[in-house]
Amino acid sequence: MVHINENYFKLQAGYLFPEIGRRVREFQKENPKADIIRMGIGDVTQPLAPSIIRAFHEGVDEMSKAETFKGYGPEQGYDFLRETIIKNEYISRGADIHADEVFISDGSKCDTGNILEIFGKNNTIAIQDPAYPVYVDTSVMAGRTGNYLENGYYDGLVYLPCTDTNGFIPEIPKEKVDIIFLCYPNNPTGAVATRQELKKWVDYAKENKSVILFDAAYEAYIKDPDIPHSIYEIEGAREVAIEFRSFSKTAGFTGTRCAYTIIPKNIVAATSEGIEKPLYPLWLRRHTTKFNGVSYPVQKAAEAVYSTEGQKEVKSIIDYYMNNAGILRESLTKLGFRVFGGENAPYVWINSGRGIRSWDLFDKFLKEAHVVGTPGSGFGPSGEGYFRFSSFATVENVVNAMERLQNLKW
Amino acid sequence: MVHINENYFKLQAGYLFPEIGRRVREFQKENPKADIIRMGIGDVTQPLAPSIIRAFHEGVDEMSKAETFKGYGPEQGYDFLRETIIKNEYISRGADIHADEVFISDGSKCDTGNILEIFGKNNTIAIQDPAYPVYVDTSVMAGRTGNYLENGYYDGLVYLPCTDTNGFIPEIPKEKVDIIFLCYPNNPTGAVATRQELKKWVDYAKENKSVILFDAAYEAYIKDPDIPHSIYEIEGAREVAIEFRSFSKTAGFTGTRCAYTIIPKNIVAATSEGIEKPLYPLWLRRHTTKFNGVSYPVQKAAEAVYSTEGQKEVKSIIDYYMNNAGILRESLTKLGFRVFGGENAPYVWINSGRGIRSWDLFDKFLKEAHVVGTPGSGFGPSGEGYFRFSSFATVENVVNAMERLQNLKW
Repeated sequence: MVHINENYFKLQAGYLFPEIGRRVREFQKENPKADIIRMGIGDVTQPLAPSIIRAFHEGVDEMSKAETFKGYGPEQGYDFLRETIIKNEYISRGADIHADEVFISDGSKCDTGNILEIFGKNNTIAIQDPAYPVYVDTSVMAGRTGNYLENGYYDGLVYLPCTDTNGFIPEIPKEKVDIIFLCYPNNPTGAVATRQELKKWVDYAKENKSVILFDAAYEAYIKDPDIPHSIYEIEGAREVAIEFRSFSKTAGFTGTRCAYTIIPKNIVAATSEGIEKPLYPLWLRRHTTKFNGVSYPVQKAAEAVYSTEGQKEVKSIIDYYMNNAGILRESLTKLGFRVFGGENAPYVWINSGRGIRSWDLFDKFLKEAHVVGTPGSGFGPSGEGYFRFSSFATVENVVNAMERLQNLKW
Repeated sequence: MVHINENYFKLQAGYLFPEIGRRVREFQKENPKADIIRMGIGDVTQPLAPSIIRAFHEGVDEMSKAETFKGYGPEQGYDFLRETIIKNEYISRGADIHADEVFISDGSKCDTGNILEIFGKNNTIAIQDPAYPVYVDTSVMAGRTGNYLENGYYDGLVYLPCTDTNGFIPEIPKEKVDIIFLCYPNNPTGAVATRQELKKWVDYAKENKSVILFDAAYEAYIKDPDIPHSIYEIEGAREVAIEFRSFSKTAGFTGTRCAYTIIPKNIVAATSEGIEKPLYPLWLRRHTTKFNGVSYPVQKAAEAVYSTEGQKEVKSIIDYYMNNAGILRESLTKLGFRVFGGENAPYVWINSGRGIRSWDLFDKFLKEAHVVGTPGSGFGPSGEGYFRFSSFATVENVVNAMERLQNLKW
């Protein structure tokens, strides 16, 4: 008889964002007139920039004529896009990454989940706590953890607590870990890593022969010129780090779908006999065997992000969101919350300072102010008591939401 | 130290199509003037139909304005597309499938590979031999097989030989198998399954509590009105079958990317204690946790396939390819090949009848006629001696290629 993957039954409740959606829908149903302001899921609200739209249309037009029609493209992405990325994101920052190390995909969510497939089962995985839930959930689903424990942790994972006391920058683990998920600028805390901080991890990974899975989906929101945008700005990272990037937050592609992953050819992992083998051919094989490339017009649209005009346009959209982040920081500070992030990241991370649990804060904001945010505990046990506001909203909604919070009774 | 997934080292050579590409590129490099006709990879050549292009543009335009902009959509796909599919593909054929059982994705290649994730590791997998290589390769990569054996088979998989002697319709296996990959109309042999044939498998699956993974990517090419397009036209299939469909070959979406998978809520699989659990919630969880939906304008384009005009247009394109298939069948028969398929499928499957091995035939066609097809042995050991021609080409190229084959010396 056919058997099911029982690891799925270890998962706790639903994935965070569907659960938020469920609570919001239920409230809206009971209160059909309530004007709910959504700042929960980190979804962009501004339309695609004009030069991106133009290129997108051009791509569609090419699909309408036999001479320019595109069937299957290279699974790894078209060279025009891979090369533009290298030029604009890596060479410009002195990072030694090559076009054939870029794998274009339909999303970082897919990539950060799928990447585990090329690693053996007997690896110890470390994750920041709190963290984007996909890292933990996909590890659980793939049987790379033990059971869910009473205290909110999964057995077998190494959690790196990120709290107020360490400025949301985790300590290097005392035990040896093999795979380390790091996310900077961080979702959900908004923390960023300095060059020294990243060097510490690269050195650890080299010493322990670990691999860093570096999620840089929010790098475009970094304002501080001293903060690195890519882990490859750190010497030696080519030997130990895989980097995930996305057009979702950089250029408003959450509904358009395009991302990329960098796998340098230098990174190795061991066979059970301890022989070191490069990971690159495995991801190349996985990507070409289990994926069929990103829609051609979407790749054209992504390329336009790097045109002179495209760069100006997307930067102005990012400025718009970062202005929202500034309003959130200022308003929430005035309201007596402890406020973090939002300076080099689109997320503002708060603590009520009143000992209120995250989901209680969620319900209070939803029911009393009709404002939706994200409960910090949904990102991991160390997020308990915290709450995330996303600056991906219209400025009118941000101002309105902050006014509503002023009237809350505590 | 970090460990690698050693299952990848069991894989033999490259994935079939990259290997073909490599040989063609090498030949072209040595013979830059050779005018190569490519009928190897099953990639469409006709542009997207006008009504699909119109809807695609409209979708892009919606992304340009704040009022109609789409960020993250439902991971499973927009209701407008899921409901249109149900109405046109299932209700119209009397199949009892519901919109929430449709999971929109970016490709059947991804889906047929990823689906294994929701099954336990201790399942016996059966595959048709020859078959689309993704079924075997993804099983190997996920550690669901033993080693590669000298005779061309992987240990642990159950192969169902499809040859001339059984009319390319495999026998029901004597041993119990848990997961069965079936593909009809078949890639590569072009064989189709009658209602009775499919019923035999549904009955087997019910009796043995197995699950059928039914790949119907080529159903649009069925001409014979008695051949079912969906396995759900067979009574009881809702309890045992998952179906994969794609817009790639139906509507020329190989470079546009849209497909879907049907997971009926009735299908169950057992835990290690033998308790039956539905598979549906696992795929829902996988799809929402590891995937972020298909590009909105692409879903709009896919919806347009079902408009009155869209249906007319895509049918005329399919007729165009099937006319090619007719030319291939006739020419290759005249040339003395044993010819199969190409009547309800875009693939024509031939045997030289001269005892020539598949890759030798590939090299002969490439070097002496500058014509590229696909060696049958690339699809599995029972494909040895056979060769696949794809009708996805211009009629001019098909005619030209067949003329060149007339001049070959044997």
